[in-house]
Amino acid sequence: MVKAYAAMSKGSKLELFEYEPEDLKPNQVSIKVESCGICHSDISAIDGSWGKSKYPMVAGHEVIGEIIGLGSDASLHKVGDRVGLGWHSGYCHNCEHCDAGDHNFCSATQKTVFSQHGGFAEQVTADEVSVIPIPNGVNHQDAGPLLCGGITVFTPMVEFNINKDHRVGIIGIGGLGHLAIKFYKALGCHVSAFTNSDDKNDLLSKLGADEIISSTDKSMIKPIGAKFDLIISTVNVELDWNLFLSIIRPRGRLHFVGAVLAPIETSVFSLMGGRKSISGSPVGSPVNIKKMLDFCSEHKISPMVEHFKFNEINDAISKLRNNKVRFRAVLTW
Amino acid sequence: MVKAYAAMSKGSKLELFEYEPEDLKPNQVSIKVESCGICHSDISAIDGSWGKSKYPMVAGHEVIGEIIGLGSDASLHKVGDRVGLGWHSGYCHNCEHCDAGDHNFCSATQKTVFSQHGGFAEQVTADEVSVIPIPNGVNHQDAGPLLCGGITVFTPMVEFNINKDHRVGIIGIGGLGHLAIKFYKALGCHVSAFTNSDDKNDLLSKLGADEIISSTDKSMIKPIGAKFDLIISTVNVELDWNLFLSIIRPRGRLHFVGAVLAPIETSVFSLMGGRKSISGSPVGSPVNIKKMLDFCSEHKISPMVEHFKFNEINDAISKLRNNKVRFRAVLTW
Repeated sequence: MVKAYAAMSKGSKLELFEYEPEDLKPNQVSIKVESCGICHSDISAIDGSWGKSKYPMVAGHEVIGEIIGLGSDASLHKVGDRVGLGWHSGYCHNCEHCDAGDHNFCSATQKTVFSQHGGFAEQVTADEVSVIPIPNGVNHQDAGPLLCGGITVFTPMVEFNINKDHRVGIIGIGGLGHLAIKFYKALGCHVSAFTNSDDKNDLLSKLGADEIISSTDKSMIKPIGAKFDLIISTVNVELDWNLFLSIIRPRGRLHFVGAVLAPIETSVFSLMGGRKSISGSPVGSPVNIKKMLDFCSEHKISPMVEHFKFNEINDAISKLRNNKVRFRAVLTW
Repeated sequence: MVKAYAAMSKGSKLELFEYEPEDLKPNQVSIKVESCGICHSDISAIDGSWGKSKYPMVAGHEVIGEIIGLGSDASLHKVGDRVGLGWHSGYCHNCEHCDAGDHNFCSATQKTVFSQHGGFAEQVTADEVSVIPIPNGVNHQDAGPLLCGGITVFTPMVEFNINKDHRVGIIGIGGLGHLAIKFYKALGCHVSAFTNSDDKNDLLSKLGADEIISSTDKSMIKPIGAKFDLIISTVNVELDWNLFLSIIRPRGRLHFVGAVLAPIETSVFSLMGGRKSISGSPVGSPVNIKKMLDFCSEHKISPMVEHFKFNEINDAISKLRNNKVRFRAVLTW
């Protein structure tokens, strides 16, 4: 039996829950969970906000652990390897996107929290391709949040060929945003943090933000002018998107990685003048997760986390719901 | 005195109007107008819809004509050359965008219809850089609409590196849309026309559209699936943009060149799944206008136009307002 923490109904507190693991499929591996980050998407899964949750819901998709079992065809890992598992726990391997290494565009992805029981558990299984080795240079105790929060903000760097000459803005400094600051600073970019939490200012400077700007103060934002090549929004609230478009350079983009449920409203004129774009992206492909972990190893980047024991999981979730975690909660057994 | 047709007040019928031409600035040239297309933006200028119009308003910015005067420093053209003039009649020549050949991103562009008297006239003046030679292979009698309508839909081809393997959709088949079909077909793309005018179907097939789909019939659009690399919207009405995003491939884009005044509403989820973009662009740079004219010469592309004499200008505008022109009206003296 696998020990796990599950929501038994929409939005409920998590309870100890045991389940019989299914047999490994040929391409799957089994991972002994050492730690697991808590992402806002886990809370959405617990709360059933996206209409996809089944209960008992075992969330958790920022897993670091050790390979303890291999399916009959699994050949990418060996028992004892330290690995990470993120949002996707499997791909079809039979579509043009999988063929091209863009597994995260596959229309038949399995999800660690929706397609199976997730990482708030002693053990989790996944398609070996979705499981990524953790390089030695990465601090594995804090690394969990890289597997979802990290790759989500790293992906735009790769997708849009961002380099040191680009000016980057990050809206919302939490689990995703604080990693975005670290990544884009490590790349050499000028990085501006847009946030409304004054109490984070000292932390933001330590993370490397070149400037800190209120995300709702038009009198501060408007005068900046069209300076940013890329602004990444990690928030799930409505902001004045036309205002942010006004500080984006020609050919620049406002990129959404935060799952805002409210519609995005923009004017065509805000886009047309400077051939600007609005876009969004989901987590990242296995190859880009590897790239990110190597980048973290090279630049000594770790998420800034607060550690909780798994039996404190409800306290951790409650603190996260109240926006009091700096910047990501990580659970360990 | 220059003879012109002007709106004397918001939305009024045009009247004969004479004005004293200003002296040519050193970098300007003077053009004898042979023909001028009528664009929807001219109607917006006449109607004062964008709040930028001054009266008497001489609109007209799809000019074909002959150089008849050169400013003291003008060296790019010679008297007698056949040239075209579009939306922009001048640039600052002193910003990073002008330096980079992206004059259309210059924040100090002059506009043929707003910064001066435009092309519904015997004569018009402009910065020599904004004036483009018409190659011999281009049918100059019909070419006016290329200078605004044409470059507007040609620009995305250059900006987004579109090639023959891309599938392109065009929403709205009028002055811009019919040229888009011709351009992207000439490039070798699969081109779908989204329109609501059944009476255009024969014409659209003649233009080269591979398929014709109602732009508002969800039951026709939804089943297409994520197939399009680029969809260009040339309309200025609200459509179900999330529906169009659903038929765009990963990394594809929904691109606006029609000046929709209503806000564009989209959901972040429509963008995130496939790293999709929404974008917009304005006309084009001088270098891209040259590229387009060469492309037209090579592929024997002409706008499909209805000719009117300048003294029929009010009839032409009225026909255009009633969406009865196939597909662009061109005025000649």
